[in-house]
Amino acid sequence: MGTIAALAGGVGAARFLRGLVRAVPATDVVVVGNTGDDDVFHGLHVSPDLDTVTYTLAGAVGAMGWGLAGDTFRTLEAYERYGEATWFRLGDADLATHLYRTSRLREGATLTEVTAEIALAWGLKVKLLPMSDDRVATVIDVASAQGGEPVRMAMQEWFVRERAQPPVAGVRFEGAAEARPGPAVLEALREADAILLCPSNPVISIGPILALPGVRDALRARREQVVAVSPIIRGATVKGPADRLMAAAGIEVSCAGVASIYADLCGTLLVDDSDADRVGDVERHGVRAAVAPILMRDADGAEALARRALDLVS
Amino acid sequence: MGTIAALAGGVGAARFLRGLVRAVPATDVVVVGNTGDDDVFHGLHVSPDLDTVTYTLAGAVGAMGWGLAGDTFRTLEAYERYGEATWFRLGDADLATHLYRTSRLREGATLTEVTAEIALAWGLKVKLLPMSDDRVATVIDVASAQGGEPVRMAMQEWFVRERAQPPVAGVRFEGAAEARPGPAVLEALREADAILLCPSNPVISIGPILALPGVRDALRARREQVVAVSPIIRGATVKGPADRLMAAAGIEVSCAGVASIYADLCGTLLVDDSDADRVGDVERHGVRAAVAPILMRDADGAEALARRALDLVS
Repeated sequence: MGTIAALAGGVGAARFLRGLVRAVPATDVVVVGNTGDDDVFHGLHVSPDLDTVTYTLAGAVGAMGWGLAGDTFRTLEAYERYGEATWFRLGDADLATHLYRTSRLREGATLTEVTAEIALAWGLKVKLLPMSDDRVATVIDVASAQGGEPVRMAMQEWFVRERAQPPVAGVRFEGAAEARPGPAVLEALREADAILLCPSNPVISIGPILALPGVRDALRARREQVVAVSPIIRGATVKGPADRLMAAAGIEVSCAGVASIYADLCGTLLVDDSDADRVGDVERHGVRAAVAPILMRDADGAEALARRALDLVS
Repeated sequence: MGTIAALAGGVGAARFLRGLVRAVPATDVVVVGNTGDDDVFHGLHVSPDLDTVTYTLAGAVGAMGWGLAGDTFRTLEAYERYGEATWFRLGDADLATHLYRTSRLREGATLTEVTAEIALAWGLKVKLLPMSDDRVATVIDVASAQGGEPVRMAMQEWFVRERAQPPVAGVRFEGAAEARPGPAVLEALREADAILLCPSNPVISIGPILALPGVRDALRARREQVVAVSPIIRGATVKGPADRLMAAAGIEVSCAGVASIYADLCGTLLVDDSDADRVGDVERHGVRAAVAPILMRDADGAEALARRALDLVS
């Protein structure tokens, strides 16, 4: 097989990619990473999903699937003295990445360039592309308790600060319509022999990428080469708020619901063995279904899952 | 006595101020701090002298007289991965200060405003004023070994990175002629009942403050209220490169040399007991000399020195 493009969010995608680079040469893999969750904390540009992919592939990710293993929080603790909110936990070693990124962006480098530099510094062999060099902000509109206008929350505010508790009235990708995909993104999608949608949140991890002009069309044109891995097993999310966000969007929280979102651009959906009884519901959306153990318990499991996904294309 | 204005550099000044706030109510003290050493590291605005004053008065300064006691260097160590020079040692807790300052400056706050916020956060009761909100850069012109043009080095490059070793051809305060003193600086000098020149490097700590338009004139007008504490004892610097920089400027490295620099704006110079034999040489410059133990071994010594300096005004 030639090159493989993978659309990726955070933790689930990173774990899948760890298996993918064991299944194929890492240099054949182009990862298109979500930047809708990017935000500025304490003046620093933070790219949570890109860093989760980088740190995971470098074998340095923290136990929770983000940040760096063994990191300390001295700077953040000291920052509290200045009365600033520190609910977004940035570790001391992790901060170096955000400092470097921010410094380079201020110097005029693009996010694509800086991301490549950071990936190189961590020894990554995959090509890691931010979905866009333009600012796209995933916004959660939170239903007002008083029945008034929804309250706008940045994704990290809703997810981390508010622990994904406030009821969701809607999700928007601010800036997406005016943003351009990163300079190598559409080319990667056009030229890849296989395109994988990682087991990421379809609404807020893959959704922002699909919202960029040209991306959905590029995938539709390659639909037979597109394989998605369901992030939903037996109607539940493996990690993160995919269930709540799908439900808020009126999408059934199931592998069939995932198929309904991806139907126009994805030829095959890989669902968990335990969802074998839902194959018919998936295929009702015009998406072929295949079954495999999709809960990745370790790198071996991730590798097996990646091989299975690739088998469905070639 | 009413209000006291103190012109301050870094470590020596901070130790003196620690004594001053024991001698008089801290709320009566206005400190005008040197910002010629300010620089940008990893995208962060660092104000070494202001922070040394803040941390020292807060009782939190590191053993070397800068940074925070017990600080760690995780971020800086991690930063080395990105191939950036990390010779300027910024600790993890210290970084919070630089992050906060930089973030606030980007939001449009002035350095005067941010400095006051930081001082407040550390519980300081003195008013700490940066000498200017405009950028002034102390530059060391290093003599070329090949006899060519001098090489421009930022103060911290010469002092920290190069350990003050390269031969000095000259010192300049870039931007000083166009800079304005901070909004409350000249007023503080006009209204203070006593003005103290802390035992700081006269060339690169007090020099940049004096280079700002209006400051030297304001001091000349208050010459009888101005008392300086010599940073030179028996022809040697207590700490830092004052000796080398005075010599490079063709100034005698002695309390008499200090008197020659300050003669037009300072009525009295306090010299060390051990320099009693140089009183005549000081007074030859038209500056009254007084003697006291000026080496501050502890807070008690600093307090005694501050009281002695104030006695010379009132």
